Amino acid sequence: MKLLAVNCNTSGSVTREIEAAAQAVAAPGTVVVGATPSWGVASAEGYYESFISAAAVLDLLATWPGHFDAVIMAGFGEHGREGTRQLLDAPVVDITEAAAITAALIGHRFGVVTTLSSTIGSIEQSLDGLGLASRCAGVRASDVPVVDAAHDVAATADALAEAARPLLAAGADVLVLGCAGFAGLDTLLEERTGVPVVDGVAAAVTLCESLVRQGKRTSKAGAYAAPNRAKPTPGWPVSGPAVR
Amino acid sequence: MKLLAVNCNTSGSVTREIEAAAQAVAAPGTVVVGATPSWGVASAEGYYESFISAAAVLDLLATWPGHFDAVIMAGFGEHGREGTRQLLDAPVVDITEAAAITAALIGHRFGVVTTLSSTIGSIEQSLDGLGLASRCAGVRASDVPVVDAAHDVAATADALAEAARPLLAAGADVLVLGCAGFAGLDTLLEERTGVPVVDGVAAAVTLCESLVRQGKRTSKAGAYAAPNRAKPTPGWPVSGPAVR
Amino acid sequence: MKLLAVNCNTSGSVTREIEAAAQAVAAPGTVVVGATPSWGVASAEGYYESFISAAAVLDLLATWPGHFDAVIMAGFGEHGREGTRQLLDAPVVDITEAAAITAALIGHRFGVVTTLSSTIGSIEQSLDGLGLASRCAGVRASDVPVVDAAHDVAATADALAEAARPLLAAGADVLVLGCAGFAGLDTLLEERTGVPVVDGVAAAVTLCESLVRQGKRTSKAGAYAAPNRAKPTPGWPVSGPAVR
Amino acid sequence: MKLLAVNCNTSGSVTREIEAAAQAVAAPGTVVVGATPSWGVASAEGYYESFISAAAVLDLLATWPGHFDAVIMAGFGEHGREGTRQLLDAPVVDITEAAAITAALIGHRFGVVTTLSSTIGSIEQSLDGLGLASRCAGVRASDVPVVDAAHDVAATADALAEAARPLLAAGADVLVLGCAGFAGLDTLLEERTGVPVVDGVAAAVTLCESLVRQGKRTSKAGAYAAPNRAKPTPGWPVSGPAVR
Amino acid sequence: MKLLAVNCNTSGSVTREIEAAAQAVAAPGTVVVGATPSWGVASAEGYYESFISAAAVLDLLATWPGHFDAVIMAGFGEHGREGTRQLLDAPVVDITEAAAITAALIGHRFGVVTTLSSTIGSIEQSLDGLGLASRCAGVRASDVPVVDAAHDVAATADALAEAARPLLAAGADVLVLGCAGFAGLDTLLEERTGVPVVDGVAAAVTLCESLVRQGKRTSKAGAYAAPNRAKPTPGWPVSGPAVR
Amino acid sequence: MKLLAVNCNTSGSVTREIEAAAQAVAAPGTVVVGATPSWGVASAEGYYESFISAAAVLDLLATWPGHFDAVIMAGFGEHGREGTRQLLDAPVVDITEAAAITAALIGHRFGVVTTLSSTIGSIEQSLDGLGLASRCAGVRASDVPVVDAAHDVAATADALAEAARPLLAAGADVLVLGCAGFAGLDTLLEERTGVPVVDGVAAAVTLCESLVRQGKRTSKAGAYAAPNRAKPTPGWPVSGPAVR
Repeated sequence: MKLLAVNCNTSGSVTREIEAAAQAVAAPGTVVVGATPSWGVASAEGYYESFISAAAVLDLLATWPGHFDAVIMAGFGEHGREGTRQLLDAPVVDITEAAAITAALIGHRFGVVTTLSSTIGSIEQSLDGLGLASRCAGVRASDVPVVDAAHDVAATADALAEAARPLLAAGADVLVLGCAGFAGLDTLLEERTGVPVVDGVAAAVTLCESLVRQGKRTSKAGAYAAPNRAKPTPGWPVSGPAVR
Repeated sequence: MKLLAVNCNTSGSVTREIEAAAQAVAAPGTVVVGATPSWGVASAEGYYESFISAAAVLDLLATWPGHFDAVIMAGFGEHGREGTRQLLDAPVVDITEAAAITAALIGHRFGVVTTLSSTIGSIEQSLDGLGLASRCAGVRASDVPVVDAAHDVAATADALAEAARPLLAAGADVLVLGCAGFAGLDTLLEERTGVPVVDGVAAAVTLCESLVRQGKRTSKAGAYAAPNRAKPTPGWPVSGPAVR
Repeated sequence: MKLLAVNCNTSGSVTREIEAAAQAVAAPGTVVVGATPSWGVASAEGYYESFISAAAVLDLLATWPGHFDAVIMAGFGEHGREGTRQLLDAPVVDITEAAAITAALIGHRFGVVTTLSSTIGSIEQSLDGLGLASRCAGVRASDVPVVDAAHDVAATADALAEAARPLLAAGADVLVLGCAGFAGLDTLLEERTGVPVVDGVAAAVTLCESLVRQGKRTSKAGAYAAPNRAKPTPGWPVSGPAVR
Repeated sequence: MKLLAVNCNTSGSVTREIEAAAQAVAAPGTVVVGATPSWGVASAEGYYESFISAAAVLDLLATWPGHFDAVIMAGFGEHGREGTRQLLDAPVVDITEAAAITAALIGHRFGVVTTLSSTIGSIEQSLDGLGLASRCAGVRASDVPVVDAAHDVAATADALAEAARPLLAAGADVLVLGCAGFAGLDTLLEERTGVPVVDGVAAAVTLCESLVRQGKRTSKAGAYAAPNRAKPTPGWPVSGPAVR
Repeated sequence: MKLLAVNCNTSGSVTREIEAAAQAVAAPGTVVVGATPSWGVASAEGYYESFISAAAVLDLLATWPGHFDAVIMAGFGEHGREGTRQLLDAPVVDITEAAAITAALIGHRFGVVTTLSSTIGSIEQSLDGLGLASRCAGVRASDVPVVDAAHDVAATADALAEAARPLLAAGADVLVLGCAGFAGLDTLLEERTGVPVVDGVAAAVTLCESLVRQGKRTSKAGAYAAPNRAKPTPGWPVSGPAVR
Repeated sequence: MKLLAVNCNTSGSVTREIEAAAQAVAAPGTVVVGATPSWGVASAEGYYESFISAAAVLDLLATWPGHFDAVIMAGFGEHGREGTRQLLDAPVVDITEAAAITAALIGHRFGVVTTLSSTIGSIEQSLDGLGLASRCAGVRASDVPVVDAAHDVAATADALAEAARPLLAAGADVLVLGCAGFAGLDTLLEERTGVPVVDGVAAAVTLCESLVRQGKRTSKAGAYAAPNRAKPTPGWPVSGPAVR
């Protein structure tokens, strides 16, 4: 089974980290291929950047030449999920959804620890759209930008644990890593907080495998019916045919 | 006062219709300038097209050379509203919000009649984000594509009246025209249904005037704080500096 | 255009302040006329007084001799809005609604700072009825009674800023002045808090202008259908024909 | 124990019917005294009349000379409940609340059948305020005005059964009589529909007895703290001291 | 009238306390009979124990030989309420419901003080099921296990007052004793907090009397239709015919 | 990896069907072991039977002698999920949750088709507890009892398609099989309706694999902390040590 893990920003090194983290949790026989938009944002940490990244990801997927069995949208709290489901027949799993679903299965209420406070609004909108907002005890920022997350992982884990404190006090018994760039920090944060910590990339890989093994694809009978390609779309896709 | 009315699609003739409809309701001294994205979608009738249009509109606004006192986002149910608020200090009024607000002030529950069923999901998300979903009796499609709306206005009004029937039966006492391309049809639909009909473009013009006269601008103290321009954004804006 | 601004209490001096604040923001050609109930409450700071004021305002409007194009209900959080809409064909804008709507257009979440804690329940009910409660971060009392608000405006602004602190901490990026008697304090509170502050009276004036310019009146097709005047209503109106 | 059953309209004969229906279900030792506002509305069938009745009822209670252990507010869906709780220390039970509570204890979802469609909005607001709206399958009008309800009880019961049909189809397994003037029709409607039918007047009597026997009175520690009587309230109460 | 008060645990002494507390508030002519499950849990302080107790209570009621007019389910926050309503025609009142209803009639928002934090989830689920969660300011644990509640009532009342503090700060103006074993502590807690305190056992007795006097029984027309006894149920009831 | 699939009823043949359906979708290396309660209900089609089955399942799990990596609760809409999470450290996936989650990932709104109308209430409660009720277009009964589901699969699929019709009309673009006994009918129902159909047993198997591969177990830091085993639990477990 081949999974396409689409980064929401233009950093190839972040894509490679996501690809590696995803491959590490994948079942035997599952191959994860990372993909990087050819234009867009260096990182998506707010509504403005998130909406740009949504179009860049759609651009990439509209022109992707290869086959895939399912798509992982690897931007936490990023927009565009429903558009991707319209575009594709293959199942689409967003890491925000995947993390929230995993957390809801192993705990009663979850808290999300993310990078900057500018991302909180997008994340809350994503959880509202999914429908699990009632299970969320809150979203808190650690003030660690995504580009700095990997510099000193112990320090990042400390900052996340600090951000998690009010969430645990408010009743969260599970935490969610609110950024793809935090992949791999779950164990460090579990040690610091004593609660299970969910990594959305790992969650999304296994949920894609779940959907593919069930043989289910995105419904085309309603909101996600294919867009009308007959209609001229000027200057789109922006990037021309994508190349990996 | 100068208002920028941004069309969500690339049709210059639609932009001119919006501009004219907006100017017609504007107060003395208010000038409405229409703007058309230089790339994007021929019409936005579903999630996929809506997310593309969001980025194209942001692209236009990020590079707009002229002054404006407020912005009208003239795509009904389109995405990107929160990103635009991040980008700009000037007030932003989306026609979906404007229509829903007007309807909530003159009736108890409103119904929305739109073009195709593929747009219903985006419209519902927009109303959820605004917070007035509890006042909405439903969103119904007329199966009149936006490009055909102006061909035979009497026939379009008939189709909208037909689409409105279950909404009125469900308790709606006001209707909302769920597409910028329906501008001007409010009177025809009022004649057919006997209830007030709100046109989002007209509503947005007068709400922009309301905000400008109150002297209020978009808050930069929270979710709409300006995005970090220092961060390199590769290949963005796509269009280069916009020209009217 | 003539707007009738109805005070909810019997203080003529408060009516004159409301009239002046409203006229100050009105567009050229808009005339604001203040109106004072002939009986009722010295100030409406709780459910009991609010329900009395609702009937006194209805009494005034049922007997008002002059013409008006729209009505401003100038009591923050007061009851009776839906009854007024039943009584009149002209549009009705309550300052609670108007402030909340304005705040929702320029920020993500708003907080309300009001006079006494006894008014909080009514204000919350009003926001629930409107449908924007989900956008409200909370309502807080400053413990400044309405009659004292104008004595020392700097001290009042300080008390409001203090009351606003937990609202800002809870994520509010806009504030609403929760009392008509606070009109004019928006600038002082903006200086103290750094966030936009909305004054409901100013908001209501410009929203009335918005509705009148759109040519829309209260729907009579549902919940606001005119009451049955044929039915004898003993001893009502209480006041006899109103005189300005 | 003495219960004061306050009619919301000015009809003494309706008050006597309420008093009799209430006394019939009361426990030994409970005395029900009916009370009629000295001004107000002939019947309260919509927001406008409901807000007038609220003030008239407050007027009556503010000047009632006798003792009572609890108050029944006997207008279905009428406003003013929270104001009455502010005014009094004795427990207050509104028949809307009482009927909904009883229905929620003996069934899964209830439907309300009322007089005219103009009353539906007020009833929905009352259920929202109580908090049991999620248990309500809907409110339907029978088009039988309250003044005609007692003329031909079999015909009225037939009309109520007809109005109930869509509610039962939507899952209601209990019905509520949505008007004090329907008192006594519960058995006739049970025969026609096969589901339990709750009469709010009977429910309110027994809930008042419940509160008095528990020795509980309205909390004065929050939203229902007594209004400030020191504050001059011009021309209020309207009626002067009430006489039974 | 005969009421069956079913303890949710197997402690006969707790049953006797419940029976005595219930009898104390009952009207003349009402006889309360306590009942103890023959198997199950020593105390139900969490989901696991609560689900076991639900089946043990159903087992008891499925085999109870005597007559009763209504049933009190005397475990605060315990599961099984809807199953009991399916099994029986007689009205069923759960003390969680009864306390929440009483609190909602005498205050604006209530807080619940319970034993251990492990019980909070069940209590919240019960309030959600009832529909009054919007009236609840929160549920807080006192860390007093039910078995210790009666040892030193002054100390227990102190612990409950401490647990109540954040609830009162969050706007609760009424408190609910969140455990049948706290019966009788309402007065002590009222002295310590100044707000009315509701005891669910007393509330349930008077609500049972309310339903019986109204002549209403559990609806069999929907969700509570009798289970199909024709279907073999292996090894059930577990206890064989119950004996008091 | 070893998964324990616990049937909620006492039918060994149903258990064997569940085991086979689960094994069929499992990844290489996953072994599914079916388990049957030693007492309880022949089928769980309503609240009463569901609460009995919850205790019987807890009894089975409390005494299960073998090892397992995760547990599948294979009763659709059955109670007890949270109690099982308290009892066990291993992950627990209920087929109701699993089906709803899968449906929410591949469609916009899902509908549930189940056996008898008596099961609808339990299913709705389960979805409310999960938090995905907002994604559910409704639950409809086919009037096919679970014991008859396998007799004539074409007829059962026809009945399910008929039950699905109003759900599809209400906007469902995915269907969920609301009974473990419907396992294997997904393809037949997809042929009849044209929308993807989710089988909860298959979904639960792959979600268990997802959780185990992520290395996550049930959080013991909150609502699911282990029950206090020191406390004597009389006559429990009912069954004594379970034997497969």
